[in-house]
Amino acid sequence: MESFNVTVGPVSRDLPTVKVGSVNRVPLVEFIGDSEFTNETAQAMLPLIPAGTEVLLTVVTNALPLTHELSDRSGIPYVCARKKRRTYMTDPIIQDVPSMTLGVSETLWLDSHQAARLAGRQVTIVQDVMASGGTARALARFVERAGGSVIGYLAAFKQGDSDLPVTFLQELPTSL
Amino acid sequence: MESFNVTVGPVSRDLPTVKVGSVNRVPLVEFIGDSEFTNETAQAMLPLIPAGTEVLLTVVTNALPLTHELSDRSGIPYVCARKKRRTYMTDPIIQDVPSMTLGVSETLWLDSHQAARLAGRQVTIVQDVMASGGTARALARFVERAGGSVIGYLAAFKQGDSDLPVTFLQELPTSL
Repeated sequence: MESFNVTVGPVSRDLPTVKVGSVNRVPLVEFIGDSEFTNETAQAMLPLIPAGTEVLLTVVTNALPLTHELSDRSGIPYVCARKKRRTYMTDPIIQDVPSMTLGVSETLWLDSHQAARLAGRQVTIVQDVMASGGTARALARFVERAGGSVIGYLAAFKQGDSDLPVTFLQELPTSL
Repeated sequence: MESFNVTVGPVSRDLPTVKVGSVNRVPLVEFIGDSEFTNETAQAMLPLIPAGTEVLLTVVTNALPLTHELSDRSGIPYVCARKKRRTYMTDPIIQDVPSMTLGVSETLWLDSHQAARLAGRQVTIVQDVMASGGTARALARFVERAGGSVIGYLAAFKQGDSDLPVTFLQELPTSL
């Protein structure tokens, strides 16, 4: 199948599909470069933000415009982990996470100034797509290490099975 | 100097400063994690978008939420180059650019599907900060190679001298 349709509110997109392994194809969710899709998805996610959330935590790159928009619309501040050490980071905390997309494990970086914004706060982890939950678990560890509490996992889409209690808009197939 | 104040519309931020080399400090502009600052900056940049712009082109990461917001508010679609090859890219075009922040040269990647959105279009290059213009030049080359035309350079901030004709909101010092 060359594309997979998703509809969020008034917006419909035929997602391209990409090869995973030698036989499978999966839909590719791209918020980057599509502000309309990003905004409608953020709007639909708003009522799913767990009550009591004080900070949203996400990671670059595809979930960044989505979380920006979710933060703007909810009034809840957000923090974003990086996938590269930037030279300006001071005493960053790091977490390893296996990545399906890149096929290698990745290291996530959180600057100490950003980690301080999680301390003592009730934090919801935000993702574009939750698959195995590996990235979500790494983000949750950031929260714990920074002295905050994870109160929920929120993703636009869920793809495959994770044992994390994630709230999501739609499920995507793991093979087409 | 430990911080540097900027004011954009109703929003004022004391930017942290970071060391560059052994004696200089420069202000660090961070849109990631600050939707209010991002939005007010996008709003202030709106009237500076060159007339006739059909597509905005930027690059991850800090300029991404800014350009998302600029696209949303202007109704002009945007394309975003990446700094890593993603496995799903097909026939990407690449450009090298020297990076001040990382201290090494970087390679920018543009998927062929995204490049196709630049073909035959009048494109404005959008950045968070334009310094030497190296990144802007690499983005302009993407436009040319994709068959589009660059009609302007727009940055929230300008820092140092470039020979590119950039429109910007404010100038940042190159040393503090």
